[in-house]
Amino acid sequence: MTKQKKSALKEQEGVSASEITNISSIQKIKQKRKAQPSAADLVSQILNGNITALSRAITLVESKNTAHLKKANTIIKACLPHANKSIRVGITGVPGVGKSTFIEAFGSYLTGQGKKVAVLAIDPSSSLTKGSILGDKTRMEDLVKDKNAFIRPSPSGESLGGVARKTRETIILCEAAGFDTIIIETVGVGQSETAVHSMVDFFLLLKLAGAGDELQGIKRGIIEMADAIAINKADGENAKSAKLAKVEFNRALHLYPEKDSAWKPKVTLCSALHNQGIDTIWQIIQDYIKITTKNNYLKHNRNEQNKFWLIQTIEMRLKSNFFNNEKIKKELKNQLQLIEENKTTPFAAADYLLALK
Amino acid sequence: MTKQKKSALKEQEGVSASEITNISSIQKIKQKRKAQPSAADLVSQILNGNITALSRAITLVESKNTAHLKKANTIIKACLPHANKSIRVGITGVPGVGKSTFIEAFGSYLTGQGKKVAVLAIDPSSSLTKGSILGDKTRMEDLVKDKNAFIRPSPSGESLGGVARKTRETIILCEAAGFDTIIIETVGVGQSETAVHSMVDFFLLLKLAGAGDELQGIKRGIIEMADAIAINKADGENAKSAKLAKVEFNRALHLYPEKDSAWKPKVTLCSALHNQGIDTIWQIIQDYIKITTKNNYLKHNRNEQNKFWLIQTIEMRLKSNFFNNEKIKKELKNQLQLIEENKTTPFAAADYLLALK
Repeated sequence: MTKQKKSALKEQEGVSASEITNISSIQKIKQKRKAQPSAADLVSQILNGNITALSRAITLVESKNTAHLKKANTIIKACLPHANKSIRVGITGVPGVGKSTFIEAFGSYLTGQGKKVAVLAIDPSSSLTKGSILGDKTRMEDLVKDKNAFIRPSPSGESLGGVARKTRETIILCEAAGFDTIIIETVGVGQSETAVHSMVDFFLLLKLAGAGDELQGIKRGIIEMADAIAINKADGENAKSAKLAKVEFNRALHLYPEKDSAWKPKVTLCSALHNQGIDTIWQIIQDYIKITTKNNYLKHNRNEQNKFWLIQTIEMRLKSNFFNNEKIKKELKNQLQLIEENKTTPFAAADYLLALK
Repeated sequence: MTKQKKSALKEQEGVSASEITNISSIQKIKQKRKAQPSAADLVSQILNGNITALSRAITLVESKNTAHLKKANTIIKACLPHANKSIRVGITGVPGVGKSTFIEAFGSYLTGQGKKVAVLAIDPSSSLTKGSILGDKTRMEDLVKDKNAFIRPSPSGESLGGVARKTRETIILCEAAGFDTIIIETVGVGQSETAVHSMVDFFLLLKLAGAGDELQGIKRGIIEMADAIAINKADGENAKSAKLAKVEFNRALHLYPEKDSAWKPKVTLCSALHNQGIDTIWQIIQDYIKITTKNNYLKHNRNEQNKFWLIQTIEMRLKSNFFNNEKIKKELKNQLQLIEENKTTPFAAADYLLALK
């Protein structure tokens, strides 16, 4: 109740809203804004595992305000020496495969083992309020209440590149806050799997055993990325077809060339709803981490991922810098007109435009 | 025999090779080089349908020599007002589908109809002497001898972008030389189909009727690009399964959203070996051209293609200009080192590098 009274939108009893109340409300809001903790404060709170500070820092990362982004960069830089120590697991699967139930079961299993679990998402479509399971936290009732779990929906953003950048920076903040297992889910639309794959250590594909050809409708690229395929809902009537699907996936995986990690992808059955097979999946991930730590692939892969993001970011910015230049914008239009009139070729026009800047 | 004597490498009878002969040989070679026709000469010869001049101009387009490329650009610019008047047909299909036999039959049918046919290829792998059917002209015996046909293998080049650019410029030259039908084939590896699709008016997918699921193993994207699917080798024992395949493809095509061209992709049977169904395919293409000329999609599509190539070329060059800069090369290395030591993030490093140039 005290909280409610603090709200600037709450009228005092017996006093109707007036200009004066509004002015004092605005002042209150401004004061509250000024009270925002400094970057240094947020960093020390994050390093102490303070979830409110973590959330605030992520909000800065996701902001479009330049001052916020600058503050976010300061915080990230200070957090960096304390990051990079978690196991990062990517999870994908088509809608209906039971991803939210799986993450609920898997996350709860991990916190039960004494782990601290952060669940993030890459979902460029979430701004359209479709797709992301994390948008609907109510589907993960237990995990939401778990004090050793931190759930954060996909940042919204116009481009996959922007969303991915924000999620990668959020990983650093979560790691600095002491989360030792980071789960990144994606709804598996478009290129988002590739983005998730390029920021995790281990990539898990969730599948269902269906009637008919198990391999139909799966993008070849996804299978190639998977370090393990878990066939979910392998219970009751589905148990038999799930076993058949396991055989078929195992056969399919044999057709792929050996991975750089020297890891042989595993196929396993689970029922997230009945908490079956969850421990096996965690064992597979631990085996993977063991092997790839020993052969140094884990470190090598993270370096390659960093390089990939560095190059990607530069390319994105080079393009936007060029095409958002006013002179280029104008001349691009002219050149397109000349091309349409068969007076120049796209290649000659490109030469001309590149010489302008 | 006279020709052979002209060779600088041919010794005169009774006279052994001496320094003096070599010097005169070199002079002869140099004189020959000087005798290369000018850009203006080549243009007027090309416009007269001179195949030797056309070949020479294409060689300039494919050259890595800056002076040659400059000359090539002059020629292309002069040819442009005479280009853009052909029907451009892209043909793809996996190895073994009978592409060379099909192009032989299709090309011969067209020249029989009074058409002038140029056959080009996009095959970034051809430098490895694998893949391109046009590398082996002997497979198209009749078409090679046909004076109304012009066959040119894929330009070699390190990147698909480079190969595609050269082929697009070659299209312009062929059109200026009076070729009214341009066939561009690709072996269907990697992204080359997309490149071909982005430079043709009509995209034909060749398929075989096989045992089992007809749709397996076809990249979804390819089906989406196709304006027609021709099931080849639909003869003898294959006739029945080809008909079944036709039904299945027709059903599959119905699942795709309507094309921007408002054209409904057709499925047809043919036997290139027995010259069956070739006329039907040409009729389909003519229908397509009629419809898309009427609804203006043909012109709109070519404009969009030009825009695509303009943007692509600029992006390619922006990247190579940036990453080939000596200062950037050096600092990129440093930044990668700092990232590896957790002292900066890929995004902060990108900001730093972009500010350098």
